[in-house]
Amino acid sequence: MPKTMLAVVKPDPAPGAEIRQVKLPVIGRTDVLVKVKVASICGTDLHIYEWDRWAQRRIHPPLIPGHEFCGEVVAHGDEVTSVKEGDFVSAEMHVACGKCVQCRTGEAHICQNVKIIGVDADGAFAEYVAIPESNIWKLDPAIPIEYASILDPLGNAVHSVLAGEIAARTVAITGCGPIGLFAIAVARAVGASQVFAIETNAHRREIAGKMKADVVLDPASQDVPAEILERTGGLGADVVLEMAGQPNGLTSRPISLNFSEDIIFKGITVQGINGRRMYQTWYQMTALLKAGKLDLHPAITDRIAMKDFSRAMERLKTGEASKILVYPNGSG
Amino acid sequence: MPKTMLAVVKPDPAPGAEIRQVKLPVIGRTDVLVKVKVASICGTDLHIYEWDRWAQRRIHPPLIPGHEFCGEVVAHGDEVTSVKEGDFVSAEMHVACGKCVQCRTGEAHICQNVKIIGVDADGAFAEYVAIPESNIWKLDPAIPIEYASILDPLGNAVHSVLAGEIAARTVAITGCGPIGLFAIAVARAVGASQVFAIETNAHRREIAGKMKADVVLDPASQDVPAEILERTGGLGADVVLEMAGQPNGLTSRPISLNFSEDIIFKGITVQGINGRRMYQTWYQMTALLKAGKLDLHPAITDRIAMKDFSRAMERLKTGEASKILVYPNGSG
Amino acid sequence: MPKTMLAVVKPDPAPGAEIRQVKLPVIGRTDVLVKVKVASICGTDLHIYEWDRWAQRRIHPPLIPGHEFCGEVVAHGDEVTSVKEGDFVSAEMHVACGKCVQCRTGEAHICQNVKIIGVDADGAFAEYVAIPESNIWKLDPAIPIEYASILDPLGNAVHSVLAGEIAARTVAITGCGPIGLFAIAVARAVGASQVFAIETNAHRREIAGKMKADVVLDPASQDVPAEILERTGGLGADVVLEMAGQPNGLTSRPISLNFSEDIIFKGITVQGINGRRMYQTWYQMTALLKAGKLDLHPAITDRIAMKDFSRAMERLKTGEASKILVYPNGSG
Amino acid sequence: MPKTMLAVVKPDPAPGAEIRQVKLPVIGRTDVLVKVKVASICGTDLHIYEWDRWAQRRIHPPLIPGHEFCGEVVAHGDEVTSVKEGDFVSAEMHVACGKCVQCRTGEAHICQNVKIIGVDADGAFAEYVAIPESNIWKLDPAIPIEYASILDPLGNAVHSVLAGEIAARTVAITGCGPIGLFAIAVARAVGASQVFAIETNAHRREIAGKMKADVVLDPASQDVPAEILERTGGLGADVVLEMAGQPNGLTSRPISLNFSEDIIFKGITVQGINGRRMYQTWYQMTALLKAGKLDLHPAITDRIAMKDFSRAMERLKTGEASKILVYPNGSG
Repeated sequence: MPKTMLAVVKPDPAPGAEIRQVKLPVIGRTDVLVKVKVASICGTDLHIYEWDRWAQRRIHPPLIPGHEFCGEVVAHGDEVTSVKEGDFVSAEMHVACGKCVQCRTGEAHICQNVKIIGVDADGAFAEYVAIPESNIWKLDPAIPIEYASILDPLGNAVHSVLAGEIAARTVAITGCGPIGLFAIAVARAVGASQVFAIETNAHRREIAGKMKADVVLDPASQDVPAEILERTGGLGADVVLEMAGQPNGLTSRPISLNFSEDIIFKGITVQGINGRRMYQTWYQMTALLKAGKLDLHPAITDRIAMKDFSRAMERLKTGEASKILVYPNGSG
Repeated sequence: MPKTMLAVVKPDPAPGAEIRQVKLPVIGRTDVLVKVKVASICGTDLHIYEWDRWAQRRIHPPLIPGHEFCGEVVAHGDEVTSVKEGDFVSAEMHVACGKCVQCRTGEAHICQNVKIIGVDADGAFAEYVAIPESNIWKLDPAIPIEYASILDPLGNAVHSVLAGEIAARTVAITGCGPIGLFAIAVARAVGASQVFAIETNAHRREIAGKMKADVVLDPASQDVPAEILERTGGLGADVVLEMAGQPNGLTSRPISLNFSEDIIFKGITVQGINGRRMYQTWYQMTALLKAGKLDLHPAITDRIAMKDFSRAMERLKTGEASKILVYPNGSG
Repeated sequence: MPKTMLAVVKPDPAPGAEIRQVKLPVIGRTDVLVKVKVASICGTDLHIYEWDRWAQRRIHPPLIPGHEFCGEVVAHGDEVTSVKEGDFVSAEMHVACGKCVQCRTGEAHICQNVKIIGVDADGAFAEYVAIPESNIWKLDPAIPIEYASILDPLGNAVHSVLAGEIAARTVAITGCGPIGLFAIAVARAVGASQVFAIETNAHRREIAGKMKADVVLDPASQDVPAEILERTGGLGADVVLEMAGQPNGLTSRPISLNFSEDIIFKGITVQGINGRRMYQTWYQMTALLKAGKLDLHPAITDRIAMKDFSRAMERLKTGEASKILVYPNGSG
Repeated sequence: MPKTMLAVVKPDPAPGAEIRQVKLPVIGRTDVLVKVKVASICGTDLHIYEWDRWAQRRIHPPLIPGHEFCGEVVAHGDEVTSVKEGDFVSAEMHVACGKCVQCRTGEAHICQNVKIIGVDADGAFAEYVAIPESNIWKLDPAIPIEYASILDPLGNAVHSVLAGEIAARTVAITGCGPIGLFAIAVARAVGASQVFAIETNAHRREIAGKMKADVVLDPASQDVPAEILERTGGLGADVVLEMAGQPNGLTSRPISLNFSEDIIFKGITVQGINGRRMYQTWYQMTALLKAGKLDLHPAITDRIAMKDFSRAMERLKTGEASKILVYPNGSG
């Protein structure tokens, strides 16, 4: 085992990041050391890179970002029993406390004390990453390696789509970033009768079409509600998945709603959905991927070597790239 | 049977109402004629009386208002089979079309083409009212007559409270108009572990205490979130029932929400709830009332003869009255 | 309009049936007269034909059987408003009373007083059939006519499959009569990750393969539990749909279960599922069929002219036929 | 801390048990040592005592039985962070593996590899018991000590009753052992409109009445279905909780059912329910107990000193005792 490794490092509380040689992560009795094969870039990573207001409050440099990846187990602590060297794994990077009400009632994905590896601790844009055994997800060898690196955002899509009834229903997806694009594939796979993809960016609309959305709409040039009403016999979409907001998938500004007209008289249910269920969503993803139900390739637009990380950030900013895969060992 | 009857009539598109002698309602083959024993006044009736903007758009005078009542069947059309003269009845006054998607999928309470008796057709502030057989609710003789006249708003409370898990959970009710007050009683009856009642009007707060809310809070003088957090071990209320808004229970202005902080990260579900389920809610109400699980008396503040209708409107405006019962035959 | 029509008639309480010239059905104010284009044969029809014990108790000859069909509206009563001459329709043949608890709480498909057209009243193995407006299902012209004639059994499959979570789960279907076969298609369409079809009859197993069951098993020659455990990583099927029993899809003998081992310790839920939801299932079927999600052709094995009805019964008895379509006007 | 303690010991694979002086339990880094204040006796303990067939297969003597208790923390391992000396606690005695599918999907209460303290490892009929931190339940001081000792079986009742809709519904409970008796109290607390208690043992029927079942029925002398039908307007009970079976609450013999008549045509759902949810049920119990919603006293029939354990076993066998509390330190 080497003593040092290459990693993307955010060294200071300022914009940018560097590729540096750093020490290998230290693992405890219940931790697993994984050699990263492929990582992938999330909008959150761009926030950290650009050092926006959210990042300034949340991130404590120096930090190795990166929370989407797959790799191979190369070492583990004494008390680890469920994985061994050579296992092909990914991980849930939300480390839940296990002791709050949410954790003790099956809602660990909204743990009050969650720590995110790659946000609150060193992450996966590196040759190696340390993960608690509890958070390791052993991968079925049938899962393609590229898909194995994007299970985190795919999980967001699966958790969102399966949070309500989708079979035989019409679904409108607002926002076609990577999670919105994945949601198109998932909604189709579980029997949505029509999938509407709504997106202002032309590159993303093109990918939405490749993901086989039934109808792709541009709110800047089309009357989206009218189009949907016409194609649904005047009923409107049964389900709306709001996946736009800011680059990190969240909107930071208040949204104004007329509750009487928009919610109450329509008998609508609004669900706030966050992260992925630990670990029900992971089982669901595995089942759908093994069964070959999801074609996610159109959403993977770039493959880069880790040394080109800053260039990847620029690609994301242009809006031309969707999901970018990062190869720590240069094979991107 | 008399040829004419006394009724509250809104004669013109203008504020006010009159007590007039009018013709008895005509009943069709599938209708039921009910002699009204007790009716009760809803905030909607005050809207109609005051002729506010909502009323100006919706109401087409002349109209007999009133959509909460109980009475006795005195006649019915040839094809009516499920009720007979002498039956003690109330009615669901939302007449659903039976043909829209909502009606055909068990969601008739949000029928697209609903007509409300007492709003869109002559209602129950009269000696007699005509009701389609399909909407008649036969009353168990064990139901007290006063409660039988307020099943419509009690149904709103029952439908709202039972729309989610309540047993062993803490419940905050914002707004203690009659429906909010009834919701206190219902939440307690179905096992809420703590009920917080939140209301600015001192009269209503006093009644909320009599309805046995565990904690009654005044947002004008108390830090409501802080009080609730303290009394729930820092967890906050499990369930919030928003029952304030305008006098008719609805808010007409948009409400601004920070979706990320208030909904998504908390994994919250927001349900828009309207009316009462046809007729599941009616069965539930009957079961709870027959079992003696609900003490609603504190919320019934006034009993008036129908001829004093305008005085009742003034009482409502002062904010001192809660539920007002109206006796068409003068015994109030 | 002709005065008489050709129909399959069960004239007496005895085995068999005849093709006879009979009077056209009389329609009431709220009824619709439909010219039958295609009908299809259910196992129940074979019970009636063979005059088994169930039929002896339930059927009161003379009777025109047949409860699966599509056709064209040719006349209707004065009060019918939602369909008109020329409309392409099918119908829910369970006529619910509308007045029992089940009907008034959205459970009309288990109405206590249900009458089934084709069982309790004259049905669709005829040139014309009379249907109450409430039970008519207007067909989208995009639905192929053959599929339009089998919506009743397809509805059983859709209602059963969608009665629980199916997406990303493994599903075992025991019994591959027509409803079991349709269930294969539906389960695949709504995201089942693996579908196991279990059937003793070789003809049916062959069709199950054509319906794209992932694995087809013969309990007579294979260890079904062992095969399923092996293919599910030792977990067993997540969902079992029991669709075998007797030819009419029901088992008349008691079944013995070890509740502790089979149900309680496994935390299993057993749902009794009957018929189709009125009319949610019909909307779901329409959505899936319009979206092209279901290929049902392999299950339609025979197409016959109505005059050959008895021959169709013989085909069913051999176990070689699955769904048989009947053309009243001879074009089968 | 003493070196030895008094405990109930099953020394050999044979009927009976002894009170012995044994070594104190050893605690690991993540364990907690609790001084037992009150334990209570479960039907399972009688199985172990009598050494029946179930016990012969499952139990490996020597064993200290006992899995219902409360006490005070007196020591803990280095890595324990959530409890401290002096805390008043109970514990979930099902120790889940944390790694099987059930554990990773919020179903730890049906963990495939569960170990039960008091069955598979030394339990609570002793002056001290060792418990993993993960399974400790910190008690609110508002919970009475006697109730604190019976949370395990109360949890079975709460989990069962809250497994479906109870509010405003009629509930029949078959079997009035302690869990059945607790279920009466819980069903009433969460709004059951009528509770029928069905039991052959006269002592238990008497207690069922004290628990305020609305109707107590003896299947040996009464026509239970007829009584329930009469008191529910011919509808039957909405919910049946089967809590009889053998003394340990489980039936070991197969049960024969006519699925068509009993399950399918009625659209019934049968749920297998086991244990208590970790730890949702514990939160629910705490909320109900703190709110004073449950009066469980009538079900606690005996209080004994631990040295009289064998006499308690005899009391249970007579059928006169219901829940028996055991005081290890002699204050029973």
